[in-house]
Amino acid sequence: MKEVVAVIRMNMMNVTKQALTEAGVDAFFAQEAQGRGKGLINSALLTGAKQGYEEAAEMLGEKGRLYAKRVVTVVVPDEDVEDVVQAIMAVNRTGKPGDGKVFVLPMADAVRVRTAEKGEKAIQ
Amino acid sequence: MKEVVAVIRMNMMNVTKQALTEAGVDAFFAQEAQGRGKGLINSALLTGAKQGYEEAAEMLGEKGRLYAKRVVTVVVPDEDVEDVVQAIMAVNRTGKPGDGKVFVLPMADAVRVRTAEKGEKAIQ
Amino acid sequence: MKEVVAVIRMNMMNVTKQALTEAGVDAFFAQEAQGRGKGLINSALLTGAKQGYEEAAEMLGEKGRLYAKRVVTVVVPDEDVEDVVQAIMAVNRTGKPGDGKVFVLPMADAVRVRTAEKGEKAIQ
Repeated sequence: MKEVVAVIRMNMMNVTKQALTEAGVDAFFAQEAQGRGKGLINSALLTGAKQGYEEAAEMLGEKGRLYAKRVVTVVVPDEDVEDVVQAIMAVNRTGKPGDGKVFVLPMADAVRVRTAEKGEKAIQ
Repeated sequence: MKEVVAVIRMNMMNVTKQALTEAGVDAFFAQEAQGRGKGLINSALLTGAKQGYEEAAEMLGEKGRLYAKRVVTVVVPDEDVEDVVQAIMAVNRTGKPGDGKVFVLPMADAVRVRTAEKGEKAIQ
Repeated sequence: MKEVVAVIRMNMMNVTKQALTEAGVDAFFAQEAQGRGKGLINSALLTGAKQGYEEAAEMLGEKGRLYAKRVVTVVVPDEDVEDVVQAIMAVNRTGKPGDGKVFVLPMADAVRVRTAEKGEKAIQ
């Protein structure tokens, strides 16, 4: 079992939801977040800030502003991870910065509260 | 150490909080989420959508709507995982769909910011 | 790769953001949460509640109220974990209860949606 965590654009929630459904994923949850990605930082400012220039540090604080994101979490059996990641990527890839990231984390166990089923049975 | 993540009904937050307290868990955090579980998808629609029927895909999008949930995160020593999961399940189990799930994830380390204590000392 | 999850005071978001930038971390996301830490529970009440005194259980419910928190999530290569944790702690440590915690979780994989880069390339 793995936890697949996708950080996506706010306006991609509906297509992602539909892509997960079509990929056979019933259960997932989504949360609001603010985030930023690579390339939104001016590296000259970063160097300046590291050298102790307070103006650079202050401007960095301004520059690297955060964007509204959605974080979608799905728990899937190991053999479905690749398909689910591909399904999420297919609808979220615009080619522009801000498309987001998908993280895959190991899981030790899962339990369905209603039935007390454990392991993969809990997520089927 | 393990991270125990419970996705529960919104109106179960208070009883869950109290159940954690009575189970000896001081520290946790909770977040808002929207989610859905198994069985909220019409499988005939799903088959239709996979076969390329646009109407089926559209209806799936409508059907699988998301419900407000709370996500409760607790970090506990390995030997307490079972008790904490049981405590959460005991108060959240109504027997109806939507009771939620509990996930258990491995943790590599924890640090208490105030004291810089690490590992299990950080979560005691 | 590791996922570094910091639960911090709400008003520490800006200094944490700047500390991450100065530590060379471009990408991260932040979420709202409510939480509580150790020491906010009266242990006499806890003992009473466990012995079945309803008044004690009720008072515990009142006592252990939750505080607004921010949860900051950063994914970094293994060799950067220590630096990033130190950077977060340096700006968040006031010495008073409520300074928060930093959790480190193992990651199996990461993908940048825009380029389909995987593993450490996805987070560089």
